[in-house]
Amino acid sequence: MRTVYLNGDYIPEDQATVSIFDRGFLFADGVYEVTTVVDGKLIGFDGHCERLKRSLKELGMKVEIDRDEMLEIHRELVKRNNIDQGMIYLQVTRGNPGDRDFAFPPEATKPTMVLFTQEKKVVGTAVETQGLKVVSVDDLRWGRRDIKTVQLLYPSLAKMEAKAKGADDAWLVQDGFVTEGTSNNAYIVKDGKIITRDLSHDILHGITRKSVLACAKLLQMDVEERPFTLEEAYAADEAFSTSASGFTNPIVEIDNNMIGSGKPGPIGDRLRALYLEENLKAAV
Amino acid sequence: MRTVYLNGDYIPEDQATVSIFDRGFLFADGVYEVTTVVDGKLIGFDGHCERLKRSLKELGMKVEIDRDEMLEIHRELVKRNNIDQGMIYLQVTRGNPGDRDFAFPPEATKPTMVLFTQEKKVVGTAVETQGLKVVSVDDLRWGRRDIKTVQLLYPSLAKMEAKAKGADDAWLVQDGFVTEGTSNNAYIVKDGKIITRDLSHDILHGITRKSVLACAKLLQMDVEERPFTLEEAYAADEAFSTSASGFTNPIVEIDNNMIGSGKPGPIGDRLRALYLEENLKAAV
Repeated sequence: MRTVYLNGDYIPEDQATVSIFDRGFLFADGVYEVTTVVDGKLIGFDGHCERLKRSLKELGMKVEIDRDEMLEIHRELVKRNNIDQGMIYLQVTRGNPGDRDFAFPPEATKPTMVLFTQEKKVVGTAVETQGLKVVSVDDLRWGRRDIKTVQLLYPSLAKMEAKAKGADDAWLVQDGFVTEGTSNNAYIVKDGKIITRDLSHDILHGITRKSVLACAKLLQMDVEERPFTLEEAYAADEAFSTSASGFTNPIVEIDNNMIGSGKPGPIGDRLRALYLEENLKAAV
Repeated sequence: MRTVYLNGDYIPEDQATVSIFDRGFLFADGVYEVTTVVDGKLIGFDGHCERLKRSLKELGMKVEIDRDEMLEIHRELVKRNNIDQGMIYLQVTRGNPGDRDFAFPPEATKPTMVLFTQEKKVVGTAVETQGLKVVSVDDLRWGRRDIKTVQLLYPSLAKMEAKAKGADDAWLVQDGFVTEGTSNNAYIVKDGKIITRDLSHDILHGITRKSVLACAKLLQMDVEERPFTLEEAYAADEAFSTSASGFTNPIVEIDNNMIGSGKPGPIGDRLRALYLEENLKAAV
């Protein structure tokens, strides 16, 4: 039985409940972050903390986020649940105003904050060596994917569509261009150049994306930030995704088209290795 | 203290909670309906029941909805909470799989079903005689607005933007055309003709919309179902919205442009009267 954090208390997971009037439940009026744990330490913690603050601000949620307090809660959960590898999930909602109303509740309404752990092997996975198969799915999400809200029904549906087609995940496509994966940013490599969509409201501003692009710079790799088409992806030498718990994951097939040799490519592999090296050093 | 319904039980509202792992809370993986109560009776009950089934089907949620059982729960809540005028809110989510995963849980996972009442004057409101002011806001919602999901963050944000601008509600605009209001369908009247957007994935298939259009037919009014522009709306003789709890509500101002005489128009008024007459007769 996990111990989870809910509004100031550490409690058994089966006692962790929220009111049916919580705006997270009635309006998807909440944001989240997932921080990866390796060797019991947090990867990219400050990046997640900063993005959380940004998401809250974009939605006009006046919630004070104290970095040190957040770190303490994360560490306490790692300790209490004895997490070596896995994730800490954090969600903040606009709280429980006691009734349902589209209008925001008074600012004094206490937000709901919940954190819980998930154990998961993140280093040395089968995916690293085997890669993932993806299929393309129309991107029907809302227009502010840069805000990490819990409106995750469409990514969930897209993932199920991918599974139904025998794939592992979906790459979402809008106007012919790939936006990103269901819960990861998307990259292709052509003639040695890494291509990934530029930051906008169309995609999540990945913490791992930022770090991986910094690694590419360290390695003097050529990076182009621009939208790329599905056809470019089919013809790529290599493809991969980045996410907090996946680091870089090789993509070996897109819509049944084998990418490159059909095996994880060298650029993704080098980036993964450097990303892990740098981030494990900086883990807290 | 209200009595609410949660997964088979009638309980005090302050005891009505769901797990933090409920997919309604973590993924907005849920659908809802709001049925209006007048004189203690349910308006358009069968329409809401049918739409609920459709929403569940579209999301692949295998939840059995028994019309008579649903009716009994609605009636029991009306009785226990002594509702004369107001609404019954119903939400069904994909339940609590015990952990977080984008992939759907096993089909045996019990859905969460919650219903609660809201008291609200719906007949004889000030809005009927004064009308509403709306402002236009970009429609950034996801691409399946025909499914009544709890992904309501954007409508909520749009309503707050409208309030900040001194208006009552927002009309959402996509590619220059009005889609609908934040929680209602949108109509204009020009030269005696009623114009409202045709049904598609772009808008909610309103139960009230269907009934009001049937009333328009009874009254031998001219109806054109097609997208209309914001400019057409500014130049309209009359404008109104329809929703379960608002019936038809006059719109007297759009983006600070007075519509018609700036007072509720005759066509909306006639439709409201007939809608109420027909639906009160058919109320259950």
